[in-house]
Amino acid sequence: MQPRLDFVTLAVRDLQAALAFYRDGLGLPTTGVVGREFHDEQTGAEGTIAFVELQNGLVLGLYERSNLARDASLPEGESSSLEFSLGHLVGSRDEVDDLLARAVAAGGRLTASPHQRPWGVYSGYVSDPDGHLWEVGWDARAAAA
Amino acid sequence: MQPRLDFVTLAVRDLQAALAFYRDGLGLPTTGVVGREFHDEQTGAEGTIAFVELQNGLVLGLYERSNLARDASLPEGESSSLEFSLGHLVGSRDEVDDLLARAVAAGGRLTASPHQRPWGVYSGYVSDPDGHLWEVGWDARAAAA
Repeated sequence: MQPRLDFVTLAVRDLQAALAFYRDGLGLPTTGVVGREFHDEQTGAEGTIAFVELQNGLVLGLYERSNLARDASLPEGESSSLEFSLGHLVGSRDEVDDLLARAVAAGGRLTASPHQRPWGVYSGYVSDPDGHLWEVGWDARAAAA
Repeated sequence: MQPRLDFVTLAVRDLQAALAFYRDGLGLPTTGVVGREFHDEQTGAEGTIAFVELQNGLVLGLYERSNLARDASLPEGESSSLEFSLGHLVGSRDEVDDLLARAVAAGGRLTASPHQRPWGVYSGYVSDPDGHLWEVGWDARAAAA
């Protein structure tokens, strides 16, 4: 397997609400909802999705949980915030604080206030409206390198 | 917020088992378990983690769920496979089939056999030993472009 990741697709309850958080609240670039014309007869999954373009061709997808369940042939169950976190590094402590505050203003929830962790990162966690965790951090060691 | 993702950290029950799946089973590059020397007095989180280096500086982290819970100040609860999927594109249908088979041989579970989806991607889903979903796909449109 090549050490490569092309997409991170987040399961969301409400696509418009997720889009509002990421596009309007955080200011991330997206062409909005696409793929409405697609329906998978075999699984029942709709193609409706929104893509956020990240660096170097990496794509963040926002896809309704019910469709991911059909697409992946899994039963829908209770959700969990403890499956993963997405790490986003910024350039200073102030930027960590500012971005966490912006995410909260956009409808996110601060689960862990930022502090200096012993492994060298000043970071805090915010969850998006679906409970997906982002760790926003500043790595003092990288800045010093 | 810059449209940038630096880390994807997966919560795992057993770090050695996860490492065996990704390093030994799938052949992904990693320097193995690091950070054993770190302990966050404030949260109780251990620094013990394994990193897989992906393209362009993107990093996949394997971190024990109990530590993510402490690091993010969240209660541990039931796990869920329907929070996200990681998308990995390969160069042909055969490569999709082969990689899914390899992941299953390494201890993954095929949740959805590959098929041609109406939005142009031939793909299937496999979950890792912690239930985290990977969609392995071949995009016929990209190949034709």
